[in-house]
Formats: sequence, C-alpha cells, structure tokens
Amino acid sequence: MRSKLFVPGARPELFAKALAGEADALSFDLEDAVPAERKADARVRVAEFVGSDPVRMAAKVVIVRINAIDSGYFQDDLIAVARDGVALLNLPKIESAQALLAAIGDIERAEAANGVAEPIRLLVNIETPVALAHAAEIAVAHPRVAGLQLGLGDLFEPYGIDRRGIANVHAAMFAVRMAAAQAGVFAVDGAFADLSDDAGFSAEAGMSRRLGYIGKTCIHPRQVALANAAFAASDEELAAARRIVAAAQSAAQQGRGAFVVDGKMVDLPFLKRAQALVAAAQAHA
Amino acid sequence: MRSKLFVPGARPELFAKALAGEADALSFDLEDAVPAERKADARVRVAEFVGSDPVRMAAKVVIVRINAIDSGYFQDDLIAVARDGVALLNLPKIESAQALLAAIGDIERAEAANGVAEPIRLLVNIETPVALAHAAEIAVAHPRVAGLQLGLGDLFEPYGIDRRGIANVHAAMFAVRMAAAQAGVFAVDGAFADLSDDAGFSAEAGMSRRLGYIGKTCIHPRQVALANAAFAASDEELAAARRIVAAAQSAAQQGRGAFVVDGKMVDLPFLKRAQALVAAAQAHA
Amino acid sequence: MRSKLFVPGARPELFAKALAGEADALSFDLEDAVPAERKADARVRVAEFVGSDPVRMAAKVVIVRINAIDSGYFQDDLIAVARDGVALLNLPKIESAQALLAAIGDIERAEAANGVAEPIRLLVNIETPVALAHAAEIAVAHPRVAGLQLGLGDLFEPYGIDRRGIANVHAAMFAVRMAAAQAGVFAVDGAFADLSDDAGFSAEAGMSRRLGYIGKTCIHPRQVALANAAFAASDEELAAARRIVAAAQSAAQQGRGAFVVDGKMVDLPFLKRAQALVAAAQAHA
Repeated sequence: MRSKLFVPGARPELFAKALAGEADALSFDLEDAVPAERKADARVRVAEFVGSDPVRMAAKVVIVRINAIDSGYFQDDLIAVARDGVALLNLPKIESAQALLAAIGDIERAEAANGVAEPIRLLVNIETPVALAHAAEIAVAHPRVAGLQLGLGDLFEPYGIDRRGIANVHAAMFAVRMAAAQAGVFAVDGAFADLSDDAGFSAEAGMSRRLGYIGKTCIHPRQVALANAAFAASDEELAAARRIVAAAQSAAQQGRGAFVVDGKMVDLPFLKRAQALVAAAQAHA
Repeated sequence: MRSKLFVPGARPELFAKALAGEADALSFDLEDAVPAERKADARVRVAEFVGSDPVRMAAKVVIVRINAIDSGYFQDDLIAVARDGVALLNLPKIESAQALLAAIGDIERAEAANGVAEPIRLLVNIETPVALAHAAEIAVAHPRVAGLQLGLGDLFEPYGIDRRGIANVHAAMFAVRMAAAQAGVFAVDGAFADLSDDAGFSAEAGMSRRLGYIGKTCIHPRQVALANAAFAASDEELAAARRIVAAAQSAAQQGRGAFVVDGKMVDLPFLKRAQALVAAAQAHA
Repeated sequence: MRSKLFVPGARPELFAKALAGEADALSFDLEDAVPAERKADARVRVAEFVGSDPVRMAAKVVIVRINAIDSGYFQDDLIAVARDGVALLNLPKIESAQALLAAIGDIERAEAANGVAEPIRLLVNIETPVALAHAAEIAVAHPRVAGLQLGLGDLFEPYGIDRRGIANVHAAMFAVRMAAAQAGVFAVDGAFADLSDDAGFSAEAGMSRRLGYIGKTCIHPRQVALANAAFAASDEELAAARRIVAAAQSAAQQGRGAFVVDGKMVDLPFLKRAQALVAAAQAHA
C-alpha cells in the first residue's frame, strides 16, 4: 500500500478514474470532504461503487473513511459501507482504546445486520495530541486494528505547529511508528496539503518510508506516482538485501549466527529486514 | 506573551525599569535568583511592587516564581504574593499531578487568608526528566493550570545533555508542547543562558515558535526585542492567513467544506490556525 | 566506560587480546554471538576467564551478556557467570518491569548458590518498541539496575526503520536517555554494525555523547579508540568547566547564587555539570 488515494465520497464522477489509476489503495471519504447535505447521498454512492464488480475484481485495497462516532452519521455510515469488499474501515478522531472498543461494538452489530462474511479490519487515525499519547494503547486494544494513520493537519494546525519544520513532522511520525510497532501493525503516512509542492510531498514520503511506514496518503492523483516511487526499494537496496539473504544461507550451512556482508555485521534483525525487502519487491514485480 | 522577562526578586532597583520595558510579561523571581538570606526581604519587595498602582495599570502579565513546595519558603511566599494583581504563579520543580494538587491546596488556603477575588492561575515548570514524563498528567490535573514552561537548564545540565544540540532541544520542546496541547493549555519557552549569543536565542525562539509556543523567557532586557520579533507573525504569514479566512467565507457561502488557497488544500484545522494568527496580529497592532 | 568492547564468548582466543586493549569495559557475549551448539562451552570459558587473576587485576569493567529469560539458557548462564568479578550482567530482550523482576529473582538464587559477596548490578538492554515504551518503568523497578543500553539493530531493523536517518537514531537515543535520567542510572550506546565506516561510528558516538551517554559499544577493537575519543571531554570544554568551578567558589564567598562566566548565566545545574566534567577528566588522567 505505497499510495493510498483519497476519493471524496460526494464526487462519484471521480470514482472510475481513481479505480483506473496507479494507486495501490483507494480511500473513499464520507467525512470531511462531504458537506452535511451530501452525507446521505455520498454513503449510498460509495457503497454502490465499492460493491460493484469492477472494484471487486481490481487489485486495489478498498478503504472507506467514515464519520466520527459522535458525528451523528456513524451508524448510518456503518449500515451502508460495513460490507464485504471493504478491506479497511478508516476511523477518524479516535483518542483512546475505550473509544475504539465502543466503535468496534457498533461495527460488529452492523456487520451482523449486513451478513458480512469476515470482520472488516480497521485503519485508525492518530490525529490529536491526546490520540498520539494513547496511540500504542489504541493499536494493541483489538486485533481488528490493522494499522495506524498519522494525521498531521489536525495534529498540528490547531496548535500552531509548523509542518514545514521537518523536526516537528519527524517527531510525530516517530511516535506513531513506535506505537504501531509495539502492536505489530503497520503505519501509513497521512496527506500532504500543498498540491503544487512535489518536492515537499516526496521529502515527507521519504521521511516516513525511512521510518518504516508502508505508504502515504495522496489527495490528488498526481501524487500517486510520487508515493509509489518513494516507497519502492531502490535497486541498490534490493541488491544489498539479496546479498544478505544469500550470505545467510551460506552462514546457516556453516552453522554461524552472525556474519559480515558489505563490511557490516549482520545478525537476525538485519536478515529479517532484508528478507522483507526482497519479498516486497517480488510482490510488486 | 511573546516575551516573559525574568526579574530577580532581590533586586528591587530593576523593577521599575522592567515595567517600563517592552516585555509582554514580567516574571518576578523568589527562587534561584534570591540567596537564602534575602528570601524574606525579596518576597516583601515583590509583593509591594506587584500590588502597586503602576503595575496594576500596566498592560503586563504579572508572574511570580515562588520557591518549591519542599523548600521551606513555599508557605511564606504564598502568604506574601498570592494576591490580586498576580496573573500567574510560576511553580518550579513540580514532578507529578499529586505534587501539583498538594501545592494547589496550599494556594487555596493562602488565597482565602488573603481574600483573593479570583483563583490565581498557574504556570508549571517542566524541568526534570520525571516531570517531562508526567507533563501531560500535570497539565490536565487541574483547571488552574494555564500553561507549561520548559526549563532546559535543569532538564539537561545535570545529565550532561548538550543544549547546543538542536535535536536535543527540539525533542524536549516537542514533548512539552504535546503535553500542553493534550490539556489545551499554552506552552512557553524557558531561558537561554548565553547573554552574548543573540543568534542562539533567536534560533531557539524560532524553534519553539514553530512548535506553537506562545513566547520565550528572557533573562536580560536585551533579549526582549528578540523574543517579540521571534513570536510575531511575518507579513507573509499574516497575508496568507487573511487569504485563507477570506476564502473560507466564500466557500461557506457556496456550501463547500474544503477549498484550495495558494495551491494548498485547506480544511477546518488550517482555517482555525489562520483565524488565530489574524486575531493575534490584531491584538498586538 | 567510554568504550565497551564486545567479546564473543565462543572465541576464547580473543579474550587475552581484548583484556590487553584500550577498552574501558569488556562485554563477554553468551547470546547472539554464540551458536546453540557452543553455548555450554562458551559459558564455561567465559566464567573461567572472568574469574582469572589477570582479569581481576585489570582496570576493566567486566560485563557478561547472558541469554534471554525464555531462551532455555538463562539458568545455566547464571550459575556459570553470576560470580564475583562480574561487575554487570547485561540482560537482553527485557520488555517490562515485571520481566526484569522475574529475572532478578533468578539472579538472586544463583548468587546465593554461588556465594556471591555483593549483588551484581544490571545493564538492561532496551531493544524493542515495547521496551522503549517501558524503559523508565524498567529503569526504576529495582536498585540493581545500573544502566540502560540502547539496541538499535533490534529496535529498528525488523520494522524497516533506517538507521542512517540520524533523526531516527536521535529519537530513540533521546527516549532511552530520558528514561535512564528518570531513574538516575547511566545510559550507554549500542553497537554500530558497519565496521568500515569510522565516520558513521563517530557521528553516532558524538550524538549519544551530546545526550549524556557515558560510552558506546564496540564490536571490533578498532572502534575502541574512536569511542574513547568521542566520549572524552575536549580541552576547551574542560577549560570552560574549570572556569565555572572557580567562579562558583568566588561567588559562594560573596554570597551569590547565580553568576556570569564567559557571558553565560551560570546557576546550580550548570555548576553540577561542570564539576562532573572536571571530576571525569581527573579520573581518566
């Protein structure tokens, strides 16, 4: 999920184009991108589209961001979109394990009502200072949590924190990454608002990739190629990873645990990382 | 409170000059700047001055830093200075919510004894590693807490942590800022010891401002202008904020939630930030 | 303990050379550097060597890294090496205070069985995201804990976190340093895998030193001189510290608390730091 394209739920004319594009994941939004008077229509249009044959047959991760628990739209959103074909429900404004578990209770009821075959997994947004402090607690609270998504706009703007300060961005990214790692779930990077600043997008994506994030949210189709490039391993990284995997096989045959590759001492954690890189490259090849 | 000038309580000859200066806030110190044999005199002189007509009529935030709870001076400090006219009591060496609540009990008794009209709000120093770990817990513990102040000297020096390392400074600043944001209180930056290093002062002030701190402590009057400059919005920032506020009005009339200004997608958190910048500029104009 | 040289327990031919070298501390490893079929032999050889006269008479800090509690080797390691002459037991893969206390119970029993004169102190590795979140809780859990050691390989590699990103490294270092400071224990930096990259080693050592770490782990003898250099105070730092100590004596005679040295306001935390630097320089002179 290198690129996760944001698709406004109130603009169904964009759906087919998004599906035809290069994004690894599509995230249909029922929340902030949809004004109050369009909420009902948007959820019907999104539900219809994500249940359609072209989407079911596409190799895309299908995500729907629903409205917050206390928004007044949450239950109706669930009844509409907690359905087979949705890989991840994206939950905004979660600030505690307790709030998450309450939401999951509602999701279970909606899935039962809809006859969903398999529990839908959750992508939980971490987008307030309180949520950031509780991010690990939220991530470990329930096995439905598949990943955490960092939301820097909400985390920084109301508090006057400058997102152009890369140290600011890094500190928030690191905290969410460690919380996700504690729970063994993935972390995915949020949106980058400046549509004209490709270098800024790529810099932020590079930073999150170096922190082990799996991909970045795109709010415009032109950002998709940037994200796909940023989260792909370079040829050099791949070659180094392959040398480590090969050396590990030799070392194992010789009964040794640690060994040196390219002048670096390699032991188990390095080997696991190399194996993961090689496997990811094969998946996208 | 862009600039918060530190005024040693044992040097009453400096009080009038501080009052006449450009600092937004004056912080009279009864703690580290006052040797043991001057404590009694200093608290009388500070109480006298902050209760005087020139101070009451000045547009300054009046702060008094009192001695720590376990210092042996705390109760006498409170009886002397927990009085109308003091906007903020600055509490040093608080390390837990429990310690804060104990201090507040004493403050309430002193206010009752002094017939204080309105509870005095608190500026709590975060200046030890234990306090940093508990900063959010401290900030949310009581509605009297108005803000947190980062104290890097005490936080870093005893542990051999180099303050010239800007990554070190940023990590501590970010932690205190997030704790304050969790509680919805302000964060204000601490002192910068090197009186001859204006560039260093401004760099640190710039870093805390980009983290949404409201101002910086000055230990010499010459630092006041630097702080006032660092925490003022630039003309460019203000102009951008005004464009966002104007565009929001148009968008609202057209029933749209998110909109693009200067090539950036703007939604609610960005709008709130812009509105706050415009309001702050008007307050200082 | 500026330099802490890693000595594989399964390679006794290296022991005497390590002892003759310039490392302040020797860390004999029974864990990852020793394959399963060599575990029994390695612990005997290490126990024998660390109990020998040359080691007892050397001015080295003797450390043994034993296998993890749940490894199946832990009890046998303890019986072999929980003996007088070992200054620190290095515990890997501790993730909670509870796990630490369980390990200490076993250590106490082994010490009693071995008739150890004085409880052996512990160096606890912080090397997983869960451990990082609990590092302060671990450090304060028992007075046997002498220090925390950051293990970046295990902390970063399995999660795809790039260690060449210095912001990544700094964030983990800062977290461990603050946890150690909360407990009043030391922090020591972990290994640097790339044996051919002296500049990289020195950069990482410089970063941890500026965070108040006391030294760095070396996995090759050639890294020892780099570590010793990185953690020594410069002549300039020492001279400045001596000026502060001297000025403090004058100020004390004049009854003043804070004073200015080299243009910087100096108060108690700065003085303590200067005194520590002067004392450390005398210890290594």
